[in-house]
Amino acid sequence: MIVVKVGGGAGVDLDAVCRDVAALIARGDSVVLVHGTSDAANLLAERLGVPARTITSPSGYVSRYTDPATLEVYTMAAVGVVNVGLVGRLQVLGVNAVGLNGLDGQLMRATRKDAVRAIDPESGRQRIIRDDYTGKIEAVNGGLLHLLLKAGYTPVVAPLAMGAAFERLNVDGDRAAAYVAGAIGAQTLVILTNVPGLLANFPDEASIIRHIPADDVERAIEIAGGRMKKKVLAAQEALGMGVRHVILADSRRMTPLRDALSGAGTHIGSIDPASS
Amino acid sequence: MIVVKVGGGAGVDLDAVCRDVAALIARGDSVVLVHGTSDAANLLAERLGVPARTITSPSGYVSRYTDPATLEVYTMAAVGVVNVGLVGRLQVLGVNAVGLNGLDGQLMRATRKDAVRAIDPESGRQRIIRDDYTGKIEAVNGGLLHLLLKAGYTPVVAPLAMGAAFERLNVDGDRAAAYVAGAIGAQTLVILTNVPGLLANFPDEASIIRHIPADDVERAIEIAGGRMKKKVLAAQEALGMGVRHVILADSRRMTPLRDALSGAGTHIGSIDPASS
Repeated sequence: MIVVKVGGGAGVDLDAVCRDVAALIARGDSVVLVHGTSDAANLLAERLGVPARTITSPSGYVSRYTDPATLEVYTMAAVGVVNVGLVGRLQVLGVNAVGLNGLDGQLMRATRKDAVRAIDPESGRQRIIRDDYTGKIEAVNGGLLHLLLKAGYTPVVAPLAMGAAFERLNVDGDRAAAYVAGAIGAQTLVILTNVPGLLANFPDEASIIRHIPADDVERAIEIAGGRMKKKVLAAQEALGMGVRHVILADSRRMTPLRDALSGAGTHIGSIDPASS
Repeated sequence: MIVVKVGGGAGVDLDAVCRDVAALIARGDSVVLVHGTSDAANLLAERLGVPARTITSPSGYVSRYTDPATLEVYTMAAVGVVNVGLVGRLQVLGVNAVGLNGLDGQLMRATRKDAVRAIDPESGRQRIIRDDYTGKIEAVNGGLLHLLLKAGYTPVVAPLAMGAAFERLNVDGDRAAAYVAGAIGAQTLVILTNVPGLLANFPDEASIIRHIPADDVERAIEIAGGRMKKKVLAAQEALGMGVRHVILADSRRMTPLRDALSGAGTHIGSIDPASS
């Protein structure tokens, strides 16, 4: 059982990822595909005239500022553009995909912070944001995923969760994938991005770190910069939930998933290739 | 087992319908909810500057002219606005809903006509349209619906089908509901609209036809005008697929579904109340 996270950035080749998902399924693997939505949400926000803004937390994490107008755009993009697009691509390839978001069968429950501390980009000072609909995943309904997988369907999961008050919440796709992998007892989580893996000296691609033992993940989080920080954090969370093997790998390849499973990218946790 | 179709028009009280769906489920019924999307698609088309156009067939049926730009808007509205909105409303009410569209698990397969004859609204003459992505449903994957229902989930189905070339197709929600009801062996199909039922003298609501035996449906199709024509046609299709009892009823009530099941609206087919 393999969980694959494919990013929502502009450079990601969704066709190549879907072809590889189909190849894994054809060889007998069970796959759950979790996706991002950043580029589609930005494009739709621009078409609708809703400004795309980000929040930088005091510890340096950057996320989408998801006020109610942005949440509506984010939902349409995640569910009505990217998710349905991936399901269609997989169906063409003979994979009987089923699209889901966190509200479906309470697939992903998350908590929202009433007040978020953020660094104001102009003054550099902290301010409090109260209308951000971003959540932290707390629970995944693995039963629904197992039900579908067992019946021969391939779940495709959009990064939208359900809050404690049943509100929709924007959740980080990498961490969603980690929780999904943990909930279904997946051995392997592959996080595809648009860099070759974790780079010791960003952006020098030759400085890729090939393997990070589970014990060293904390230090890897410190090395990682920008978006990669959250991916290593997601890897740590997945390992903590029993996933043996997390791979951060490049989606900009002809066979991105099969390359990752044969050794490309940064491998975190177990290095036994038989575990993948 | 009851299939409920709720329209996507501006006047429909989705909250009341969802409360009633929850009440039916609480009393032990299994429900599949199929929805329309007209108003949400029109609103989004307007926000995005995509003109909403209709096609009138030579026999007088009116449908949305779904060119590629409209199909994109239609998909976002059906899947990313209405479907996710209904799933959220049902979750609040304690119903563990799962949103689906026709691509998910190949739930609804449809065929598209390469060339559609339409009456030009200006000249009144026939013309041929070749870029309309509207489909006629051919098959419904009842197995996926049964799988979810048996596991305690309530499927919520968006009117988007998958064509023979895996393309997305706009399908009529009433006829989608009829095919869903036939595929799962539902006894009852309730089609909620914003009139009290089939009116012998439209718009005189006192002229409502209370009961149409199965043998008389053909004649009822002739009596029906405008949108109601398709609803009676959907009822006929449902009866042909083994559904015993179709109700055309008013959604503009506090308890629209329970009223329909207790005798309100136009009842087509079996009149045995025990069959509902």
